[in-house]
Order: sequence, then C-alpha cells, then structure tokens
Amino acid sequence: MSRNNLLAVDAMGGDHAPAAIIAGLDIAAERHPKARFLVFGDEAVVAPLLAKTKHLKNQATLRHAGAVITGDMKPTIALRIRDSSMRRAIDAVLHNEAAGVISAGNTGALLALSKIVLKSLKGIDRPAMAAIGPSSRSDVVMLDVGLNVVYDSRNLVEFALMGETFARIVLGIPKPTFGLLNIGSEEGKGDEILRVAAATLRESPIASQFHGFIEGHDIAAGTVDVVVTDGFTGNVAIKTGEGALKLVGKLLKRVFTSSFMAKAGYLMARGALQRLSETLDPRRYNGAVLLGLNGVVVKSHGGTDAQGFAHAVDVAVDMITHDFNSRIAERLAELDRVILSTEASDVLDV
Amino acid sequence: MSRNNLLAVDAMGGDHAPAAIIAGLDIAAERHPKARFLVFGDEAVVAPLLAKTKHLKNQATLRHAGAVITGDMKPTIALRIRDSSMRRAIDAVLHNEAAGVISAGNTGALLALSKIVLKSLKGIDRPAMAAIGPSSRSDVVMLDVGLNVVYDSRNLVEFALMGETFARIVLGIPKPTFGLLNIGSEEGKGDEILRVAAATLRESPIASQFHGFIEGHDIAAGTVDVVVTDGFTGNVAIKTGEGALKLVGKLLKRVFTSSFMAKAGYLMARGALQRLSETLDPRRYNGAVLLGLNGVVVKSHGGTDAQGFAHAVDVAVDMITHDFNSRIAERLAELDRVILSTEASDVLDV
Repeated sequence: MSRNNLLAVDAMGGDHAPAAIIAGLDIAAERHPKARFLVFGDEAVVAPLLAKTKHLKNQATLRHAGAVITGDMKPTIALRIRDSSMRRAIDAVLHNEAAGVISAGNTGALLALSKIVLKSLKGIDRPAMAAIGPSSRSDVVMLDVGLNVVYDSRNLVEFALMGETFARIVLGIPKPTFGLLNIGSEEGKGDEILRVAAATLRESPIASQFHGFIEGHDIAAGTVDVVVTDGFTGNVAIKTGEGALKLVGKLLKRVFTSSFMAKAGYLMARGALQRLSETLDPRRYNGAVLLGLNGVVVKSHGGTDAQGFAHAVDVAVDMITHDFNSRIAERLAELDRVILSTEASDVLDV
Repeated sequence: MSRNNLLAVDAMGGDHAPAAIIAGLDIAAERHPKARFLVFGDEAVVAPLLAKTKHLKNQATLRHAGAVITGDMKPTIALRIRDSSMRRAIDAVLHNEAAGVISAGNTGALLALSKIVLKSLKGIDRPAMAAIGPSSRSDVVMLDVGLNVVYDSRNLVEFALMGETFARIVLGIPKPTFGLLNIGSEEGKGDEILRVAAATLRESPIASQFHGFIEGHDIAAGTVDVVVTDGFTGNVAIKTGEGALKLVGKLLKRVFTSSFMAKAGYLMARGALQRLSETLDPRRYNGAVLLGLNGVVVKSHGGTDAQGFAHAVDVAVDMITHDFNSRIAERLAELDRVILSTEASDVLDV
C-alpha cells in the first residue's frame, strides 16, 4: 500500500471527540474510498464507535493510545507526554507510516509537536499555517495565519510558493493567482520586507500568476486565489473577517424577528437564505493546514461537528494523494534555479 | 468668537465637490447652530451654491482659493501648490483662524500637507489615523488605520491615549474601554513592542479601562470601545472587515432576487432590512481622523454624498468644540507623571 493514501488521525482531540471525529471520518471515508486511516485513541471508547461505522471500519486501523492532550494543556507539558493520541499520530508520519496527520485537539500543542517532531521540509525556512475562506468569486487561500510573527522576504516568497501549490491541489485551480497583502497596491507601499519579496516574486517561476500588492478588501472580493502575508497580519485579518460575518449574521437574526412582517418575509425567503448561510457555513472552511513540514498536518476546529471534521479530512486526503510536499520541492528547485541564474548574470554584469 | 467653533473646509475635494460638500455642510450647520465654517474654494462656483443654502449661509465665510488638488496628484506635487483650497484650509488652522480642517480630497495629499504644515502635538511622537466602525454592541474606534508602518511601544501607548479621548468626545462614552490588537489574548502573545506597550498601559492613568490584548474577532464583537494597533495591521483589518460586509451585502442581493418567493419575502421584510442597512451604512462611518497634530484634521471619503460628508463634519465639530487637543495634552501630562514616578521608584529600589 502506498504511504500516500494513509492519514494518521487523532481520535481524542476536540470538544466532541471521539464521537464526532469517528462520525466525520466515516463521512470522509465514503467520499474517498481509496484513503486509509490510522486511528489513534483509547481503544475501549473508540473501538465500539468504529465498529458501528458504515464505511470507515473497512478503511481504518485502530491503534491504542493511552493518554489525551487536553484543550487547556500547555504545549511544553504536551511535549513530554509520549503516548498521547496526538503525539502517536504525529509519530506515525515521522516513521513514514502515514503521509499526514489530522487533529481537532489543542492547537498550540499540535503546532509545537508537529514542528518539533516533523521538522521543516528541506528548503523551507519557516512553515506556515494556511486557511481557506469565502469570497464573492470563489474560495480563497490565506497564509500565514498565525505561525510567524517574525519573518523576512524569503519567508514570504516561500509562503507564496506553498500557497500556490496548495490552491492547485485543494481548490483544483490550474494556475492560481496570488497577491501580497499590503496597505496599498502601489509599488512603493509597505516596508522593505514586502518590497523585496515582491521583487523576488516578479522573477520567480510563478511570476505570471503574481498580482502584486493587494489590500484588505481584496480578500473577500476574490481579487486573487491566494493571499500571502505574515502570521500576525494574516491572523488578525482572518479573525476580523470572521467577526464581520458573525456581526451581519447576528444583525440579520435581529431583523427577521423584529416584526410579524419580517418573520413572514423570512419564511418566504427561507430557502434562498439557507443557501446563503451554506455558502458562508464555517464548517465548509474548517481546517487550518500546516505547510512546509515533513508531512501534511491539518488542524480542525476544536468545536466542530462530524460534517466540519469531514471537510478537514477532505483537505488532508487531497494533499496526501496529490503528494503536496513533492510539488513544493519541485517549486523550490525551480525558484533556486531562477535565483541562482539571476545571481550569476548579476556577477557577469559586473 | 472662540476659535473652538471654527472649522476650515476644503470645498473642492472629493468626487462630487463642491455641490455635495456645500450640501453636506448645510445639513451639519443645522445640527450645529453654534459652529462656524471657513469655506475655501473657487468663488465663482462656490458662492452661488452657498447662497442657496438654508442654514450654512449664515454660519459660513467664503474665501477664494484658485487651485485644486486633484485625486490623482502625488503628495510631493500637492505640497508645492500654495493656493489650493486644501492647503489654504490647513493654513487657516496653522494661523489659528480655525481649530480644525475637513476635506474629502486626495488622502495622500491631505496626510502629507497636514503633517508637514501642522506638525505633531507637543508630546506626541507620531500622529495616528482613527476610524469609526460598527460592532454588535455599539460603535468602535480603531487606530492607527494607516499612518504608521514603523512604530514602537511608546507610539502604541500614545495611540491608546488619543483613541480613549476620541471615544469620550465623539462617541460620548464616559470611560471607554480599549484593547491592544494581537494574535491571542494571553500575556505572552505577540512581539516585544506589544508586550512592552501592554505593560506601560497597565501602569497608565487609564489602566482601569485597559482590556489587555484582543483579537481580530473582538473588533466587530464590540469587546472594547477602542481598538489600538499599528498602521499596517489596522489598515488591513479595517479594509478586511469592510470587504467581508460588502461580500454579505452582495450575497444577500443575490438571495433576494433568486426566486419569486425570495423577492416576495424581501418586500415583506423590507422595512427591517432597511434598518439593518442603515446600521451598517458606510456613510455613518464616513471620515477618518488624524489625531496628534496641532489642529483637528478630518478626512471624508472622496466618493461620499452630502449625508456622508455631514457625518464627517459632525465628528470634526465635536472634536473642536470639546477641544480634543487640550484633553490629549492633559492625558499626556498624567502619563508622564506616572512614568516619571515609576522610574523614580525604580531608582530608589536599586
């Protein structure tokens, strides 16, 4: 069996684990009949749940893991527990038993464990966290959304390469466009780090897909398929956007309960409004992905239900079956060839 | 006549100038009968418009200015034109004829001219740009939203002081709460600049109103009255939030035209939906304000109509009648007393 269809699963992480995790995996198993799952968790609890599944039971192997990383545990403590379901799932990737890992557990612990155990992919200086969100055109990828508060131009270029590859594989866009998030679209805007990154990207193998600088409103407008930014700005932007959507949802609820006429109007438009709420359903955008490690790492929201977890599994399965990390390695090699030849011609010019 | 009720107005800036500017001023003049306006613009065009107003004509003095700063003019060029309506209005503040200036013209030019002509208020290292937006609780002030890409901890502390004073005066909140925008609410989150700023604010005269670190979703949730951040993050956050609201508006329009039932539902809920769209009306949040200069500077959106411009005038009039800059000076003096006494006790400890 190829390692590229094997996903390690932390069955014990998340508010509704393990029931929602196993139920979500079962949904995903039906959608990906060739995928196989190595499930880590408390055998006494997970085995009966697994036995009751329709599809998953034929695609999963259960491995007992005695400990659980709780939601409030500090990453430094989590690191010391070797037999947790999360750690065992990550170790399965380290030992080449699985190509990726998925968990709905403690975010800080998952980040710390993955970075320390799996380490950066060769050629990648800093891994990044990517997320998918809605726009008025189609889905949009944004990275980094929280891993790197400290970064340089080379990091932003690597984020762009990883984001472009991610959008090709997970969104299925043949030539995704991407832009660097800035406070204006003119060339001189932003700091030196952004300007040098933009100059490098204009010489990169994916220069033709580079839209240049974009602004905050371009994210939801769908100006580009991939929004490239640092971990501080990306984290604030994604949470600000989510907050604004939540605000409108709250105000709409108030509107449609404000009078008898409004309630009646809601009932008449209900079908169409439900399609809107499906378009913006946070469960569709569940799962932040760690890019640039030796193995695919997908984090599902802790509070998600089975449907939301299944969406996160979709992302992980797409990434491992399309061998995301090999695609990244190819891009990096192309980039280095371009940069080396540019440096060589610079030398010849002098 | 006190200088504190005199506002200098650039009548020629903005897409619909001077007609929308004069019409908006007339609306504001009725709301603020004690306010007086020094209007700068092309006499041949503005004088007839002014003569036709109901309230403004009794509260305004027109001064001829021969040139106009166009929307696409570079700030470096705008700086050289001495007789533009924008420059003359700013000069009126410099010469103590007016306490503040308002313009719907070229943003870059207004920022550059104001900073160079008016200079920073004593004790303020870097001026900041503040904006008001909606939240699920009440209106929220955010600053800096675009002026400072380079900043330090002291700048963030000054932004907090200015934002708190602004919220007291313009939103009328006796003790506004404020938070520092970060990627997590725990004390160790973010970089050194944020952590030092937080430590200083915990010792400041407004420490009891300091909520600590907040995240992106707290903006629209209304967790605090004032969101304090640097100019890069604030600019991205405000534009991302606006973009998300626009996305929902677009999707809602699609929903309510998608079927006969949905159209009928819209008609029944129309009154309530209109109140929602008024709550989120961008014209209500028109006007970014430059804080920390020797004089109040308000920038209205270039594309705004008379109602939107009137809202921006409201903000400017509130600030000059409540003598915003004197309130800031008081806060700065309190802060320096606290910092000095802390330093003194530090010395005694050693």
